[in-house]
Amino acid sequence: MFDIKKNAQTVVLKNAPRVVGFFSVAGPKEARGKLGESFDIVLDDDTMKEKTYEKTETKMLVEAVNGAIEKASLKQEDINLMLAGDLMNQSTSTGFAARELLLPQLGLYDACATMASSLVVGSLILSGGAMSNCVCVTGSHFSSAERLFRFPLELGNQRQKTSQWTVTGAGAVVLEAKKENVKTKGIKISAVTIGKVIDFGIVDPSNMGAAMAPAAVHTFLTHLKNTKTKTEDYSLIVTGDLGLFGKRIFLELIAKEGININTLDNYNDCGAMVYEDSQGTQQGASGAGASAIVLTSHILKKLQEGIYKKVLFMATGALLSTTTSQQGESIPSVCHAVVLERE
Amino acid sequence: MFDIKKNAQTVVLKNAPRVVGFFSVAGPKEARGKLGESFDIVLDDDTMKEKTYEKTETKMLVEAVNGAIEKASLKQEDINLMLAGDLMNQSTSTGFAARELLLPQLGLYDACATMASSLVVGSLILSGGAMSNCVCVTGSHFSSAERLFRFPLELGNQRQKTSQWTVTGAGAVVLEAKKENVKTKGIKISAVTIGKVIDFGIVDPSNMGAAMAPAAVHTFLTHLKNTKTKTEDYSLIVTGDLGLFGKRIFLELIAKEGININTLDNYNDCGAMVYEDSQGTQQGASGAGASAIVLTSHILKKLQEGIYKKVLFMATGALLSTTTSQQGESIPSVCHAVVLERE
Repeated sequence: MFDIKKNAQTVVLKNAPRVVGFFSVAGPKEARGKLGESFDIVLDDDTMKEKTYEKTETKMLVEAVNGAIEKASLKQEDINLMLAGDLMNQSTSTGFAARELLLPQLGLYDACATMASSLVVGSLILSGGAMSNCVCVTGSHFSSAERLFRFPLELGNQRQKTSQWTVTGAGAVVLEAKKENVKTKGIKISAVTIGKVIDFGIVDPSNMGAAMAPAAVHTFLTHLKNTKTKTEDYSLIVTGDLGLFGKRIFLELIAKEGININTLDNYNDCGAMVYEDSQGTQQGASGAGASAIVLTSHILKKLQEGIYKKVLFMATGALLSTTTSQQGESIPSVCHAVVLERE
Repeated sequence: MFDIKKNAQTVVLKNAPRVVGFFSVAGPKEARGKLGESFDIVLDDDTMKEKTYEKTETKMLVEAVNGAIEKASLKQEDINLMLAGDLMNQSTSTGFAARELLLPQLGLYDACATMASSLVVGSLILSGGAMSNCVCVTGSHFSSAERLFRFPLELGNQRQKTSQWTVTGAGAVVLEAKKENVKTKGIKISAVTIGKVIDFGIVDPSNMGAAMAPAAVHTFLTHLKNTKTKTEDYSLIVTGDLGLFGKRIFLELIAKEGININTLDNYNDCGAMVYEDSQGTQQGASGAGASAIVLTSHILKKLQEGIYKKVLFMATGALLSTTTSQQGESIPSVCHAVVLERE
């Protein structure tokens, strides 16, 4: 089913860049979830006193970037590059955040895979020595996403069984290039795998888990093959925001490819890690913010504490728009992978 | 007015990557314009027999990528990475093109600056030696853009004096990493300057030239300062798609910064280079396709022929959406610069 062709999708980084700062901003619902204790900032309400949810989203991104820069003991003017993206039309949340931050900025769009794609681009650039650091950021807001992709909240539409709940939150990571002849302890990005866009014909925009799972499987198989690693080499293998249903599909698909489900005690999905079952989010969390807040609260902290040694972080994105869905198109998806290692 | 702070916005590339293939696809109106003779493919009509303009846009991107790969004497499976973006909501044209091309893909969003930003990201990655090649692509379609950003064409709305005409077209460039100990003649990317997001408070989405000109000036001044070059060092300095009105603003703003207008015989704007005055496009061309087709038809050919020696290519992008305009927001803009040199 999955034909892994050549093309150099995986790069093992010669000069692995370091994670020197990370910061998470989360909404009130997210704070009542499984990771509630771990976030750096929790919003009192989901507006941050802004007039529109779009402005709130922008403000979260700014807070996350500034927080990560401060944690890295750097100043705004020290930062060489911001790599940023979000889910809004024309990525306006990050564009407007960049206007405020006044950092050199390159915009990315990989939907909910943007936390991974920004780390991929950042680490590829830094490993080549062209710059000394960058900040990677993404986020999402439940209410701006519902308005844009689904229905006005005021309609009170019923949610479908396969629905996921867009995370209100943002996460930022500061990467620093490896310094020559300096041995530093910490977290490094040792390898990346860039995904191909995969489409298994799912047309239901309320079933993102099913649409994105094949892309996650494709990137996962490619990564294992190219790096000659096995599932047990990782403390944690974590997909982006497949949610509970998508997670099951992922496990079924890899089982068909001969990867035994029993060996995957170390597998989880960011979409399944945010909310409690009692929070009524159907299949769990989604949105660019989902993998961003799980990475910048839970995953990087466990790496820092030495509880995780090596994490395969694979964020997934569905590359649809309301226009393509209305035109009857199926949902192409992508998944990018990053290896985070404690050393 | 323009405070050029430090931050490493400019990178002079140690191992300058080479342009080894480029390809342009243009619509019928563009073919009747100033560069009509130079395009690789001219569409018979603006649909390519597709049912929607969005599908046509996707098809143009696929044609441009395949054309550029063929001109580079490579095959699809040789390509390590596609860097792509477009103007549609959630960048669906490139997402759907990537689905067809099955290349490892990273999505970018820098609006009409995407031709430059894809070359920036590509050359930064290749100069570090992480990969051997990549293809950079962007494009736009007049009718999909009008429907998305302005009014349904069927309404027959009057166009404003400051309007520009979104180019129907796409351009792709294949970059190759410098090979060690191999002296190659050709076109190299020797330096890049990553723009900051600048906003001078323009709120009229029919006046993109005015919104984007300050970002172009900011990047231009930063680039000259950081590279210690002068305007006369370049055979051509070319901005993205400011159009005729924006071009005038650009010249006025740099004059205020002490750069004499008379020295700029070598300055032009992609927005002013596509259509004939008689074609009724008000201030000229715009859209991600504008700088893409001018680069991949006119500019790279003149470099190849040795008529140009060194070109400063600065594509500009307006980071607005219909939502931000309706919410009364002004238009943040960005400009990224790439130095193309014949050697």
